[in-house]
Amino acid sequence: MTKKKVLVCNDDGINAPGIYALATALKAEFDVTVVAPDKQMSAVGHAITIHSPLRVSEYKINGEFFGYAVSGTPADCVKLALRSLMKEQPDLIISGINHGGNTSTSIIYSGTVSAATEGTFLGIPSIAISLATYGAPDFSVAAGYALELGKLVLQKGLPGGLLLNVNVPPLPKSSIAGVKVTRMGNSIWDDAFDHRKDPHNNNYYWLTGNLIIVDDADDQDEIAVSQNYISVTPIQFDLTAHHFLEELKKWELPK
Amino acid sequence: MTKKKVLVCNDDGINAPGIYALATALKAEFDVTVVAPDKQMSAVGHAITIHSPLRVSEYKINGEFFGYAVSGTPADCVKLALRSLMKEQPDLIISGINHGGNTSTSIIYSGTVSAATEGTFLGIPSIAISLATYGAPDFSVAAGYALELGKLVLQKGLPGGLLLNVNVPPLPKSSIAGVKVTRMGNSIWDDAFDHRKDPHNNNYYWLTGNLIIVDDADDQDEIAVSQNYISVTPIQFDLTAHHFLEELKKWELPK
Repeated sequence: MTKKKVLVCNDDGINAPGIYALATALKAEFDVTVVAPDKQMSAVGHAITIHSPLRVSEYKINGEFFGYAVSGTPADCVKLALRSLMKEQPDLIISGINHGGNTSTSIIYSGTVSAATEGTFLGIPSIAISLATYGAPDFSVAAGYALELGKLVLQKGLPGGLLLNVNVPPLPKSSIAGVKVTRMGNSIWDDAFDHRKDPHNNNYYWLTGNLIIVDDADDQDEIAVSQNYISVTPIQFDLTAHHFLEELKKWELPK
Repeated sequence: MTKKKVLVCNDDGINAPGIYALATALKAEFDVTVVAPDKQMSAVGHAITIHSPLRVSEYKINGEFFGYAVSGTPADCVKLALRSLMKEQPDLIISGINHGGNTSTSIIYSGTVSAATEGTFLGIPSIAISLATYGAPDFSVAAGYALELGKLVLQKGLPGGLLLNVNVPPLPKSSIAGVKVTRMGNSIWDDAFDHRKDPHNNNYYWLTGNLIIVDDADDQDEIAVSQNYISVTPIQFDLTAHHFLEELKKWELPK
């Protein structure tokens, strides 16, 4: 049987350990094509490159071809993969594994989610997956989950116009409480700027800030992850896909 | 009476004619602060700058202070304005006037809309306004409309979590058919890449494409503008604010 074709993208860049873990896990069962930014592209939101051309190079790991490195954003990577680099359209797109959670309003800034959104625009079932830690990451649980969820999505399909946004707590498999279908939370960034002077006495500003939990209801992505659940949120361009929550709850999601 | 404070931002850059027309029109009745990117930032989506610091300079026109130029994205500009540059919070944020429409899925890529979204996150009534042409622009009708709509929003308020996205057809006032409250359309970009070789025989790719009208219902932003209406769409992080459409239709929107 021909293997299903999966496009893998991310926003941390093609040399990030998260995309390597994801692609490696998926290769066990899928025909995987990796197309990812040639550098770190976190927090680029849904940017696309329109004022300069895109360059593509072959990125190798230990001398072996791993994927295409693109001088653009995550959304550019998906567009270029679907419209130019891949001979046939993929059956599924998985973006990640992001190093850091993409929950609540962080989703708006997320390049990981934007890559999956591009897939959704073009009618391809898409998943974004993130590991909710900024500490030293172990991507193995999230990578295994991506493979299982990918298989389920290929079997069930997804309604047009929505994707699944997955956040995995940074825990060994045995410590994960389970899987929850959630809505996008309301937490917001309470931004601040660290205002400094450079050695030439010019001003500069570093963005800092803390995520403020506005609403602590259990059915939110942010809260579910903090309670050690894997969070799966159906998202549309209209972000939470309210009409699909109930149906997704009936799915036997992989644990 | 103290004038209301309005923050003006854009994504075309502080030297763009659209922000000049907007700020000039608003100064007739408001206390205006301009904080905008120091260069063209179209299609940056909701990007923010987290890996480098932001620089701020004073931008002058004919020797007179016009506003703060920031080495960042539209979303960075609003965050920095609210958290650091402005002594008091604005009563209203208006982002634009963008040179080019921001309708249907284009909204997802729009830096103009992202600036207004940042305002919404922070609880400030916000408007994004665009002139729907890529040809030679005359911003005067759109600038006048921004002033009138801004006054109405200050009088009525806006529910939390949503902004108004306005698209103005590129016509003299006498040719405008009226104002329509619309929903975000379903049109999508049918992307293509122009694949070229540089003089050193390396590949490069330019993004091109056409907007495909998926659904031609009259109540969509894209269609309303093509029928010479000014389109006003309530947008939430969950993009179309369905529950607010009916109420907004009861407003006496300025014509």
